[in-house]
Amino acid sequence: MSKQELEVIGQGADGCCDGLASAPLDDERVAQLAKVFKALGDPVRLRLLSMIASREGGEVCVCEMTPAFDLSQPTISHHLKLLRQAGLIDCERRGTWVYYWVLPGALDQLAAFLTMPQTAGATA
Amino acid sequence: MSKQELEVIGQGADGCCDGLASAPLDDERVAQLAKVFKALGDPVRLRLLSMIASREGGEVCVCEMTPAFDLSQPTISHHLKLLRQAGLIDCERRGTWVYYWVLPGALDQLAAFLTMPQTAGATA
Repeated sequence: MSKQELEVIGQGADGCCDGLASAPLDDERVAQLAKVFKALGDPVRLRLLSMIASREGGEVCVCEMTPAFDLSQPTISHHLKLLRQAGLIDCERRGTWVYYWVLPGALDQLAAFLTMPQTAGATA
Repeated sequence: MSKQELEVIGQGADGCCDGLASAPLDDERVAQLAKVFKALGDPVRLRLLSMIASREGGEVCVCEMTPAFDLSQPTISHHLKLLRQAGLIDCERRGTWVYYWVLPGALDQLAAFLTMPQTAGATA
């Protein structure tokens, strides 16, 4: 697992655990987060990520993913590449095939970023 | 707050609380989620959302947002419209200005969707 990729999504070097409600977010972090959300903002990529995330053993061969979509393997590989560049999944080639797995820390950190503080109670 | 919008992100009528790891996700839900993530996948929209989410009182006038960006008010309004269409914020016109607030339930449900189950331990 690439620690670097997790850090991209997770915590800036200058502050821990800043979320959506802790503005101002610095420009670099915003750009990185937008890239990750953009990667998630496509139905095919969401389905691919879900397919990988829901796999019991944690790994899925690209050869299993292509038949599940009405798309060419290069197209599937392109979508997987975008998910990988966003730090959401990682992969390893073994012989003919490439195997993919989710980086759960990346997803958890994204979830933490989106979670609003519980102190924001009703102000009526 | 629009209950309908929250339901778009949250739970399908046919199942509660399905997350990324609970495949297969149905096509309609995937399309809706992709729309929300796509709305988040832009630096300007993330900064706008963060600006609203971090506001103590919970509401921000559009007149306060425009000066914070090097963009025209119609452009800012367009980005806000996409966030609203995604069910992440809501707004109300009062006199000359429109006031925006975050729908925290929508963000929480998105966070829950991304959170991986903790049962996925090491299998080595």
